[in-house]
Amino acid sequence: MRTIAIDAMGGDHAPKAIVEGVNQAIAEFSDIEIKLYGDEAKIKEYLIAKERVTIVHTEEKINSDDEPVQAIRKKKQASMILGAQAVKDGEAEAVISAGNTGALLAAGLFVVGRIKGIDRPALMSSLPTIDGKNFEMLDLGANAENTAHHLHQYAILGSFYAEAVNGVKQPRVGLLNNGTEATKGDPLRKEVFELLSNESTINFIGNIEARELLNRVADVVVTDGFTGNAVLKTIEGTGLSIFKALKKAIQDGGLKAKAGAYLMKDSLYGMRDMMDYSSAGGAVLIGLQAPVVKCHGSSQADSVYYTIKQVRTMLENQVVDKIVNEFSKERGQNE
Amino acid sequence: MRTIAIDAMGGDHAPKAIVEGVNQAIAEFSDIEIKLYGDEAKIKEYLIAKERVTIVHTEEKINSDDEPVQAIRKKKQASMILGAQAVKDGEAEAVISAGNTGALLAAGLFVVGRIKGIDRPALMSSLPTIDGKNFEMLDLGANAENTAHHLHQYAILGSFYAEAVNGVKQPRVGLLNNGTEATKGDPLRKEVFELLSNESTINFIGNIEARELLNRVADVVVTDGFTGNAVLKTIEGTGLSIFKALKKAIQDGGLKAKAGAYLMKDSLYGMRDMMDYSSAGGAVLIGLQAPVVKCHGSSQADSVYYTIKQVRTMLENQVVDKIVNEFSKERGQNE
Repeated sequence: MRTIAIDAMGGDHAPKAIVEGVNQAIAEFSDIEIKLYGDEAKIKEYLIAKERVTIVHTEEKINSDDEPVQAIRKKKQASMILGAQAVKDGEAEAVISAGNTGALLAAGLFVVGRIKGIDRPALMSSLPTIDGKNFEMLDLGANAENTAHHLHQYAILGSFYAEAVNGVKQPRVGLLNNGTEATKGDPLRKEVFELLSNESTINFIGNIEARELLNRVADVVVTDGFTGNAVLKTIEGTGLSIFKALKKAIQDGGLKAKAGAYLMKDSLYGMRDMMDYSSAGGAVLIGLQAPVVKCHGSSQADSVYYTIKQVRTMLENQVVDKIVNEFSKERGQNE
Repeated sequence: MRTIAIDAMGGDHAPKAIVEGVNQAIAEFSDIEIKLYGDEAKIKEYLIAKERVTIVHTEEKINSDDEPVQAIRKKKQASMILGAQAVKDGEAEAVISAGNTGALLAAGLFVVGRIKGIDRPALMSSLPTIDGKNFEMLDLGANAENTAHHLHQYAILGSFYAEAVNGVKQPRVGLLNNGTEATKGDPLRKEVFELLSNESTINFIGNIEARELLNRVADVVVTDGFTGNAVLKTIEGTGLSIFKALKKAIQDGGLKAKAGAYLMKDSLYGMRDMMDYSSAGGAVLIGLQAPVVKCHGSSQADSVYYTIKQVRTMLENQVVDKIVNEFSKERGQNE
């Protein structure tokens, strides 16, 4: 039995979406147990699952506009912090929250703790590609600044994850750069290119360009947190803008366009689903001593369910243990 | 009469697309004269315009895979270099090329020359927004690395351009960052935020996020060349991927989807046109002593025509003179 701690109070649709996701997951997986942290009365309104769910009542919670480090210092009884604390105390093996990303990162760092040998955990997420599959990208913004050494570690972390969780053999690891040639980029990229070229534990395929990301040119894409954040938000923003423009084109296009859209409905929905991030699970704060996973703030029940499923796979395949092993080897001595 | 030098041999569809674009521009604008650099016989195959066009024959040209600085040193007679040289010698007021971007940047820097007081020219382009308008973004990759001082200059350059060429009064200048709060970002962004907040010549509206770019939250978006390049390529790549996925959804959707797509044809084309960059003109290497403008390598005649139109507007509104004036003022003394 695997025990997962879940912050019931984080995100735009909490606790409803969170608890409904838990209902689905408990019905589907008989080998997990869930500890829900938050307002007991409100949680009970939505809780259907009768077994393997415990509610740990608390009235405190971290808001989306709370300053992260202040919040985790002052709100010791917040649902998110109690979840992280449960992991630290060995009462749960992983923690999930759809709340304040900065606070979850801080809780991950200061409560759950880094893996020895990892300097700075990264935010990593599965992004969908046009062939209906996906790739892992990191760092998506856990850090505003990164060194070449950090990116070197991210390449290894991402590769371990893609192999253990997505089942990709020898995942192709690419470095996001402003050109594909080996000599491209700023000094940071050039240094990382050199480090990854000499890294025997991964299958480094060289530089890749942002234009090719959604064509699945790599299984793991490594970049610094500032660029990763900008690229992720650009993908989301461009996708949203195009669908908004499509909707407007249909509305302005008169009866003919509306009839056309009606006939194309299934195809358009299929395409939207393909671009939908929710089935890909949450963003993993990788490099911590246990899975700490962030659901999107706007998550509905489905997306919470998929995140629980993803965490279950991470636990089953012992991805954290594998990373701990790798970084406690000769690597640890280089520090 | 304004004289514009054009590299007839650059880009994927040269010289056909270039010369056809020139034909259109000469027919449309009676106040411009064009000097075409390249293979005379090949140019003549497509040239219809009978007046105000001079061909300067040369057999040398810079290829897309030439190393930029080497190319401009060794290929002194290349069509692109002769065009830049014409600007330096006062025989033309601006130069356009659809060829090797790095070589055009090098030719701009070493042949045309920087404006006094500008440290590093930037690549700036108009990007389309979902309301059918556009915004200017810089640097899109002229530099792999930028200092806060560079970005400060880009904010002023972009603001002058948006006002003079796009006719925007007090253009809203935004800094691309990983959050909208004033305290966000890496040390570079924080320093730029401070500089722009104290810059009285521009209308600085603060930080903006990549997710909002296509919603026209700013008229000018300032970023470093590495991030700008990644964001631009992500917009292009995401757009292309979505249209590819839409096409596939229609093909796989059977007769119903195909009939729907047929009815929606006009709306879909309208949307594609809205996302089309060609009518927005070329990318300007801003900060040089004359307009040096890069057409997209895959430019067709239309896009060449719009770039000529854009350069004509730049010359008419004396955007370079205005920048020279601004940077020769008190600013020059700070250096």
